[in-house]
Amino acid sequence: MAKPFDPVQSANEEARETTRQLLREARFGTLATINENGYPFASLVTFALDRAQTPFLLVSRLSGHTKHLLADQRCSLLVGEPGKGDPLAHARITIQCSASIIDRASDENIILRTLFIARHPKAALYIDFPDFLYIRLTMMEASLNGGFGKAFRLKSDDLR
Amino acid sequence: MAKPFDPVQSANEEARETTRQLLREARFGTLATINENGYPFASLVTFALDRAQTPFLLVSRLSGHTKHLLADQRCSLLVGEPGKGDPLAHARITIQCSASIIDRASDENIILRTLFIARHPKAALYIDFPDFLYIRLTMMEASLNGGFGKAFRLKSDDLR
Repeated sequence: MAKPFDPVQSANEEARETTRQLLREARFGTLATINENGYPFASLVTFALDRAQTPFLLVSRLSGHTKHLLADQRCSLLVGEPGKGDPLAHARITIQCSASIIDRASDENIILRTLFIARHPKAALYIDFPDFLYIRLTMMEASLNGGFGKAFRLKSDDLR
Repeated sequence: MAKPFDPVQSANEEARETTRQLLREARFGTLATINENGYPFASLVTFALDRAQTPFLLVSRLSGHTKHLLADQRCSLLVGEPGKGDPLAHARITIQCSASIIDRASDENIILRTLFIARHPKAALYIDFPDFLYIRLTMMEASLNGGFGKAFRLKSDDLR
């Protein structure tokens, strides 16, 4: 019996390079978390990349998405800015992630602070507020959409 | 005992008007659905408003988010385009929604088609493809973020 049509291709080097570029250049991302009602919740976030090129967030404990991640580490990050013209014509990627809180007392905080400010200089206004913390998003798999008809599936090895 | 600090205010008329404006003017939104692994999944969508000002999507049955919504109607829609400068300084809203498929054979399809093309003229290229369908997002409650320190909670009555 023929397999059902699957429009999604396995990742190739071009897909991996597009992914790295999206992660390096994004000004923001959209995070999806599970809220207190069990519903998926989409919110705008800023992120940077650590030395292993893993994304991490700077978030306030007062924010809804932070409370969601403290209760359930499952999330996804959508990266890729819709430019001019048809928003669906631009490349973007949804990365399924597992969130982990970085201990504020750890040495790692100093490194993440430097990396975050380098990418988001305006965050200097609030980065040291006591309610803010870093959350690392370990990437598990991803769906890359390079525009109509250009869909790729990336596995964890493709995301290293 | 004092109540814990809640930075989120109840909606006022300004919050309701900002919400209507975001829904009228957005070029795109981000949809959060639950994927086949139970993870929240964020993806880019275009939408329009029906005559009751309820958002509806035009999606392909081949898309991941459509499959998710066919299996679980729970979703949210993030609306509000990050403009220039700090992306977190711009107003945006997360609306918790319940998704319902519009029967392609219903008369309503003709009305939704007209409304969708009026807002997204380029969708004329694919709107009549047989794998495309409309999904209505009934709005249940919402979190409006008008920039730092300006957070509002909207109930279903505020979203009518």
